Amino acid sequence: MTFTYFMPTSICFGSGALDELGRVPLPGKKALVVISAGTSMRKLGYLSRVEALLHKNGAETVVYDKIQPNPTKSSVMEAAAIARAEQCDFVVGLGGGSSIDAAKSIAVMAKNPGDYWDYIAGGSGGGKPVTEGALPIIAITTTAGTGTEADPWTVITKEDTNEKIGFGNKHTFPYLSIVDPDLMMSVPRALTAYQGFDAFFHAAEGFIATIANPMGDLFALKSIELLARWLPVAVKDGSNKEARAQVALANTLSGLVETASCCTSEHSLEHAMSAFHPKLEHGAGLIMLCRAYFGFFLGKIPGELYEAMAKAMGEDVEALPKDKRAAAFLTALEKMIKACGMESLKMSDYGITRGELPALARNARETMGGLFELDRYKLSFEETVEIYEKAFA
Amino acid sequence: MTFTYFMPTSICFGSGALDELGRVPLPGKKALVVISAGTSMRKLGYLSRVEALLHKNGAETVVYDKIQPNPTKSSVMEAAAIARAEQCDFVVGLGGGSSIDAAKSIAVMAKNPGDYWDYIAGGSGGGKPVTEGALPIIAITTTAGTGTEADPWTVITKEDTNEKIGFGNKHTFPYLSIVDPDLMMSVPRALTAYQGFDAFFHAAEGFIATIANPMGDLFALKSIELLARWLPVAVKDGSNKEARAQVALANTLSGLVETASCCTSEHSLEHAMSAFHPKLEHGAGLIMLCRAYFGFFLGKIPGELYEAMAKAMGEDVEALPKDKRAAAFLTALEKMIKACGMESLKMSDYGITRGELPALARNARETMGGLFELDRYKLSFEETVEIYEKAFA
Repeated sequence: MTFTYFMPTSICFGSGALDELGRVPLPGKKALVVISAGTSMRKLGYLSRVEALLHKNGAETVVYDKIQPNPTKSSVMEAAAIARAEQCDFVVGLGGGSSIDAAKSIAVMAKNPGDYWDYIAGGSGGGKPVTEGALPIIAITTTAGTGTEADPWTVITKEDTNEKIGFGNKHTFPYLSIVDPDLMMSVPRALTAYQGFDAFFHAAEGFIATIANPMGDLFALKSIELLARWLPVAVKDGSNKEARAQVALANTLSGLVETASCCTSEHSLEHAMSAFHPKLEHGAGLIMLCRAYFGFFLGKIPGELYEAMAKAMGEDVEALPKDKRAAAFLTALEKMIKACGMESLKMSDYGITRGELPALARNARETMGGLFELDRYKLSFEETVEIYEKAFA
Repeated sequence: MTFTYFMPTSICFGSGALDELGRVPLPGKKALVVISAGTSMRKLGYLSRVEALLHKNGAETVVYDKIQPNPTKSSVMEAAAIARAEQCDFVVGLGGGSSIDAAKSIAVMAKNPGDYWDYIAGGSGGGKPVTEGALPIIAITTTAGTGTEADPWTVITKEDTNEKIGFGNKHTFPYLSIVDPDLMMSVPRALTAYQGFDAFFHAAEGFIATIANPMGDLFALKSIELLARWLPVAVKDGSNKEARAQVALANTLSGLVETASCCTSEHSLEHAMSAFHPKLEHGAGLIMLCRAYFGFFLGKIPGELYEAMAKAMGEDVEALPKDKRAAAFLTALEKMIKACGMESLKMSDYGITRGELPALARNARETMGGLFELDRYKLSFEETVEIYEKAFA
C-alpha cells in the first residue's frame, strides 16, 4: 500500500466537451495538429472543427496528416522537423491512440536533439535522458481504446527492426485531454470492440501487476465494470450515446490505471504480434491472447485478484465454491468476448504462423521485457511460447 | 456526465513515505516550514526529521510555528512577510489541515500584494483575482481529516468578523503531498474520530452535490466504504497500522472528491459554528449536524444517492423494501457514529446556545453561501435554522 500518484493532465470529459477547445487557455500560439493518414478526421469534419476552435481561441494551425495505425519513428521525426520549421509551440493529437501517441513523441522530438530512438530504453534504443522537456500536448480522442489521454505513454514502432516500444515521462502527460464521446459515435463495430478490449486489458493487467496499488485498483475495477456492462451495448448499437459515454469513461479510467500502475507482459506479447504484422489491430491481438494469457496465470497468482475482477464484471462469485471463484474471471471474459462478437478471431487470419511464435516470444521479451518484470509469476521463454501456442488458432 | 478533472499534485502515499522528502526533486532552495502553535510536531520529532530531510536534499529551512487550529488571516499575513523577508522559494505545510491550509494561503500571499482578504470571494472579501500565482507548496499531513493534500482548498478565519471562508485556485494545489500513515499513529482517539468524520462528509457531501460526477463519485464511494469499515478500528486502537493507513487513504480520496466535486451546505453550517466557537473541532461540529442535515434531505433528493452510500457502508440495501433503502444511509451513519463513540456530542457542551442559531444560519449563508448553491434542494433561511434546531442538544 505504498504508491506515488501523479497525473497532471486536465481532463475535459463529456458530450460537447470539444467546444472547450475554443474557450480554455491554450498552451501556445501555433499548433501542430497531428492526425492519421486515413480520411476520417476530414470526412467527419473533426479536423476543420478543431482548427476553427483553435483559430477562434487565438492559435494558428499546421496539420501533419501521415500517422499510421502503428505510428512509426520516421513519421515522428518528420513531423517534429515540421514543428521546428513552423515554430509550432504546442502539439494537438486528434484521433485514436496512434495520433495522440505520435503527438506525444513529436512533442518530445520538437525540443530534443538527435533521433527519437536515442531516448528509448528498451530493445535497440539508446536510453538517453530527455533533457529538454517537450512541447505542451493537447489530446483529443475520437476512439475509446488506449487511454493515452490520461497517461504519459506513447508506443512507436521502429520499422527497420520491427520494434514497437513504449516510452513516456512527466513531459508527455497531455496538458489538456478532451474526451468527447460525441466524436466516437461513428467508430465501426469491430474497432469499437478492439479498442474497448484494449482499455479492458489496460485495467485488468494493471490490476494484477506487481505494482498495483489502491489508486490504480480503484480505476481498474470501475473500468472493468463499465466495459463488461457497456462495451457489448456500444458494439451492438454504436448510436447508443450512453454506451459510448460509459465506454469513453472506462477508457479514460484505464488510462489512469496505466498512470498509477502498468500493463503486464500480455501487452509485450501483443506488441510483438502487431510489430510483425502491422495490419493487426492491437485490441484484436489482445483478444486472441487473453484466454491463454489469463488462463496460464490462474492458480499461479492470488485468486482474489481474478475474483475481484469477476465480481466487477457482474459474476455472482459468492455463489461459487471457493476453489471455482478465481476461474469466474475467465468465464466472464469469455462471455464478454462473445457478447462483443469476437469469439472467432484467429491469429492465422492475420498471417501469423505457428512457426514464428518463438520469434514473437523473443521479440516480446527483448523489446518490452520490462513488462515481464511486472508479472506476479515470472514467465520463462518456454512459457511465453506456450502462451502463444495456446492462443494460436 | 460532463466534468473537468484536474489534480496536478504528486501524491506520495504509504508507510515510510516521508523519507521521499530527502530524495525527490524539490521545487526550491529555501523552505518556509509551517507548523501549528502546539508542541506535537517538535515533541514527536517530525519537525526535526522534516528539516533534516530538506537539508539533506539541498534546501535551507525557516520555521513558522504559530498556526492556530482554525488558522487566521493575521498568521497568514505574518508568515507571508517572513517568507518574503527570508526569500523562501517554497512553503512546506507540516501537520494537520490547519498547517497545510495555512501553508497554501501563505504561499499565495508571499507572491501577491495587499491583504489576503482582498482575494477572498465570499463574505467581506474583495474577490480580486490572484495574478502572481503562489510559491510551490509541499504538504506533509500528520492527520487524516481535511484531504487538503489532494485539493486546492484552504480555509482561513478572519478574526474580527468571525468569517471562516474557503479559497483556492490552480496555484494552491500542492506540488507534492506526502501521506505517511506512520505519522498519524499518535493522533488521540477523539481527534481521530473528528478528522475521520470530516473526511467522511467531504465524500458524502461531494457525492450528493449538484456538481457530482463519475470521477468524484468513484473517490467518494471508496472513501465512504473505507471509513465506515476502518475509522471505528482506528478510533478504538490507534496503534493498528492497517486501520491508520486505510483511513489515511480514505482521507486522501476525500480530498480528491473536493477537487472533482465539492462540499455542500453542511460545511457552511459547520464553518459558522467553529467561526463563532473557535475551540469546536470542525469534525465534531459536522458529527453534531449530520443526522439533522442528511435527515432533512431524505425524500427531497434522489434516494439512489443515499442507497449507494448505505451500500458502500455495508448495509444490505437490497434486503430492504424500496421505500426504506434511502433511509439505510441514516442507519449506517448512526452506527458509525456509535462505533466511533461519538453519539453523545452536544452543541451546548461547546457553548453554543439555542438563541444564537439564527445568527449561525445568517453567517453560514453569508460567508459560505456558495455551497448552498450546490445542494440539490435549495434551503431557505428558515430551513437552515430548522436544521440547526434539530441538531441542537
